[in-house]
Amino acid sequence: MGGPTQMRRRAVSQAALAAGVLAGDRLLLARAITQVENEQSDAHTLLAQLYTHSGRGHIIGITGAPGTGKSTLVTALAQTFRSRGETVAIVAIDPTSPFTGGAILGDRVRMRGLSGDAGVFIRSMATRGSLGGLSKTTGDVVTLLDAAGYQRILVETVGVGQAEVEIASTAHTTLVVEAPGLGDEVQAIKAGILEIADILVVNKADRPGVDKTVKALEMMLEWEHGGSRLVRHHGQLMRVESPPAQAAAQTADDWRVTVLKTIAADGTGVAALGERIVAHRAWLEASGELAVREQLRVARTLENILHAELNRRLLARFPAGSLDRLVEAVHTRRTDPYSAAQSLLAAW
Amino acid sequence: MGGPTQMRRRAVSQAALAAGVLAGDRLLLARAITQVENEQSDAHTLLAQLYTHSGRGHIIGITGAPGTGKSTLVTALAQTFRSRGETVAIVAIDPTSPFTGGAILGDRVRMRGLSGDAGVFIRSMATRGSLGGLSKTTGDVVTLLDAAGYQRILVETVGVGQAEVEIASTAHTTLVVEAPGLGDEVQAIKAGILEIADILVVNKADRPGVDKTVKALEMMLEWEHGGSRLVRHHGQLMRVESPPAQAAAQTADDWRVTVLKTIAADGTGVAALGERIVAHRAWLEASGELAVREQLRVARTLENILHAELNRRLLARFPAGSLDRLVEAVHTRRTDPYSAAQSLLAAW
Repeated sequence: MGGPTQMRRRAVSQAALAAGVLAGDRLLLARAITQVENEQSDAHTLLAQLYTHSGRGHIIGITGAPGTGKSTLVTALAQTFRSRGETVAIVAIDPTSPFTGGAILGDRVRMRGLSGDAGVFIRSMATRGSLGGLSKTTGDVVTLLDAAGYQRILVETVGVGQAEVEIASTAHTTLVVEAPGLGDEVQAIKAGILEIADILVVNKADRPGVDKTVKALEMMLEWEHGGSRLVRHHGQLMRVESPPAQAAAQTADDWRVTVLKTIAADGTGVAALGERIVAHRAWLEASGELAVREQLRVARTLENILHAELNRRLLARFPAGSLDRLVEAVHTRRTDPYSAAQSLLAAW
Repeated sequence: MGGPTQMRRRAVSQAALAAGVLAGDRLLLARAITQVENEQSDAHTLLAQLYTHSGRGHIIGITGAPGTGKSTLVTALAQTFRSRGETVAIVAIDPTSPFTGGAILGDRVRMRGLSGDAGVFIRSMATRGSLGGLSKTTGDVVTLLDAAGYQRILVETVGVGQAEVEIASTAHTTLVVEAPGLGDEVQAIKAGILEIADILVVNKADRPGVDKTVKALEMMLEWEHGGSRLVRHHGQLMRVESPPAQAAAQTADDWRVTVLKTIAADGTGVAALGERIVAHRAWLEASGELAVREQLRVARTLENILHAELNRRLLARFPAGSLDRLVEAVHTRRTDPYSAAQSLLAAW
């Protein structure tokens, strides 16, 4: 109880932790991330202190179906940015079992090519129940990495589905990765994930069928063209909204989504992809789209914080077991969930 | 304004609408579903009235990757249940573009084999921004169909990812559909979707590679065996929880997940699948698992209603534009989202 060892571990105050993150101290950054990941009570103090120092990093989302080689591509991209003299942070989202909470992929061994480089920071995160999606705290972890000064922040998600939409709301630049021969063309159409891609990548381009895959994607882009862009609709603050009708017309300010081929395993095409990513960042700034996306992200963050806090306050109002009793009453059809919710809120 | 035509359209009160649904009036049922889908203000009154009449239907979720033939399988299953003399409702969740809000698959033409059968009710729903997932109002629509007396309620989702977890929390019995040669084995492992399956189906079993697919799934089941079951953990009301450690030991009461082969297009194996689904329902009732899953669903429903209502009340507190200004303040780093949320809540 408060022995010397424990005192030494606790010696770092939240203020010192924040200062350490800002100074680029990797050990303190890792500790700060753990606090945020575990949703410790004082993590919000830390985030509040660091948030105003964030906003310079370029957040790049990389998504796509399993088997497309995303991790290898992320590693190769990190090396490309490093060779440009830029610092890189990687957040790798590993899917967890929704019921056991354990990470399926476990510790990552695939990014070994980057170990020992002081300009690269790698963090693996579990999705914790959000199957294939982003962890609840991913946005906060990105804020920490941003405040720590990393210039390119790569967020890699595994899975297809909800993750794509979430990453489009979190990232500045979204890469959707495909590979030849996975039957993903159909999947891409059905899930509509093309709409969130700023850049399409066909990785494993040394495989047979690559040209067919590229052509299929380009045809779909043609069809999509002039279609939806990620915009924030005024007055409807908390949502990803459909674009205004006039955005349907292609203007000179629009970003043209293109398909790039890479072989991440030997680096082919990765430098060109890096340049395209940098060009997208420049376009975001010049067109004003960056501000739009940032505002959307802020709105989402605010919404999440408010929801969590309201839920906490509501639950704290009721003695243990009272909610269980209400659930039981609804379950046995003595009441219905709408009346039950009204009675809960009335008591509040 | 209140002309004769409009009066006739409005002549059905919520009470009469509820009575019509209970009496099995298809037209009024369709109208009630539209009210619920559009989240009309009086939909909650309707749901409150009908909820206590629900609880008898067997809710069956059917999920899996695109291309596995889920829709054909759902049609064939409906015919099987009909031949048993049971009534069937089908809710087909179509993915929508997250940004345009339009349904991608459009009107469904694939269930033509069921048209004209008064014992079958089919409803297509759009996911509305929840890419590949369930529509927000799916649970409510299921409640209506249940109250209307449909005995088997089939809920089909398209997409892989979040949808699987959601459907496992909504359905009593969850089918995960695979097909040979889609490379889905890897995907299934990675996404952990096996954990939510009560029954695994390898459809298109006339394709090459079917035995390999079946074997791969069975090996994974072996590995999973004795693993997680969907249980509600007391005291943690609002979440899908990991199972208690003792559940790891297989008991006689446990349901054994098996792999069934079907060729939905010609009906092969579909009757056996139907029997397995009926057996699962019987097991749910005998083991007490049905009550556990129902409580979980009630808790989720309550949570969703509370969240929506709290959000509505919070937003109603603030004059138009004030939230926009706060987002702008966070965006320009004059404040941080945590302090902003606190100030909003303090004002409340």
